[in-house]
Amino acid sequence: MSTEIKIEQDVLADNRANATRNRKTFGDFGVFVVNLMSGPGSGKTTLLQRTIEVMSRRLRMAVIAGDLETSRDADRLSGRGAPVIQVNTNGACHMEAHQIERIVASFDLANLDLLIIENVGNLVCPAEFDLGETERVTVLSCTEGDDKPAKYPLMFRESSLLLISKTDLLPHVYFNVDAAIADARAVHPGMQVMQLSAMRGTGMEQWYDWLAARAKSARAK
Amino acid sequence: MSTEIKIEQDVLADNRANATRNRKTFGDFGVFVVNLMSGPGSGKTTLLQRTIEVMSRRLRMAVIAGDLETSRDADRLSGRGAPVIQVNTNGACHMEAHQIERIVASFDLANLDLLIIENVGNLVCPAEFDLGETERVTVLSCTEGDDKPAKYPLMFRESSLLLISKTDLLPHVYFNVDAAIADARAVHPGMQVMQLSAMRGTGMEQWYDWLAARAKSARAK
Repeated sequence: MSTEIKIEQDVLADNRANATRNRKTFGDFGVFVVNLMSGPGSGKTTLLQRTIEVMSRRLRMAVIAGDLETSRDADRLSGRGAPVIQVNTNGACHMEAHQIERIVASFDLANLDLLIIENVGNLVCPAEFDLGETERVTVLSCTEGDDKPAKYPLMFRESSLLLISKTDLLPHVYFNVDAAIADARAVHPGMQVMQLSAMRGTGMEQWYDWLAARAKSARAK
Repeated sequence: MSTEIKIEQDVLADNRANATRNRKTFGDFGVFVVNLMSGPGSGKTTLLQRTIEVMSRRLRMAVIAGDLETSRDADRLSGRGAPVIQVNTNGACHMEAHQIERIVASFDLANLDLLIIENVGNLVCPAEFDLGETERVTVLSCTEGDDKPAKYPLMFRESSLLLISKTDLLPHVYFNVDAAIADARAVHPGMQVMQLSAMRGTGMEQWYDWLAARAKSARAK
């Protein structure tokens, strides 16, 4: 058991070293990088479809889409105004910093303002792996239930922003928005929260403005 | 990297040994054991609330509920007619066979027909860990999207039965039931599929009958 824990610490330490290099690179070039995380089916890809269509006119942006298998997310995201690179993790439950490092090596970072990394759909493991992002964002769809921040606290603790998604479905599900936000803020005091429906396009402006302001600030540094 | 893989194989091999012991124990006592898996928020707990209320009158049953933290699932499940034991994985993304072994040691297995293990909400990692169950069942809510069997194939490949849940929400979401079933059967030919809404109580009888028939068959062996 102690060997197992030691090795896991080595894996995390290696990942942290790679992430630190990535963060320095992104900082040097003034690129704002979002690590977008959630359980499967929270609506990350639909959110990104809309986000690319709108934000690629305001910023120079790129997307890295992580999945265990298939290129379905990249297929859905491509042709909307920004380059999209699919990473297959070959069954692994999270993305790691070395995967980002390898992809980013081929990017023209001097001409990039915003990079969004769509992580594997998993509310647990991705939170343990720093990718070198500037900010982490967690998406929680109201169809998943308001108990998720308390039951899966790490991801909420580690994210700057919580997007409560699929709000068009709120009339049809039992989801207490106030309870979800209170639980998120119990594990992460002061956590910023936005409610939106990417499908309907409601509540999206605050998200776009959040991205634009942070990209501007990253470039100014 | 080879050390890391070696250790992971050791962890899985240890787990497999524990699972084999569990499976023999369950077989000796004729207990039918379900490992119920899904992403977070697919409705496993609501399904189990209903299932306990109905099936605890037909069978002697118990439930083990796995979560990273909190006792929320056990709180929701208790007092409905069956003993419920909560396991906290302390942040780990899946349950392991040794946890089941330890809990089951205190059970009166000679007087148990059905044990349902509610795994951690995660569509990836739990599929890699055999618990010694008789059958695996995957729950996929229609709100998660019909692309999940193709994107997260291992869990669907390893489960005997797919429950498509929250069908009351089908009119409000884009979910092609036929496409989801076709994709599930592409990774798992002949996979059995049921559609149900635990919230509305529709489609539940086929699930109850499935449990009852298999519990009877396990006892007869």
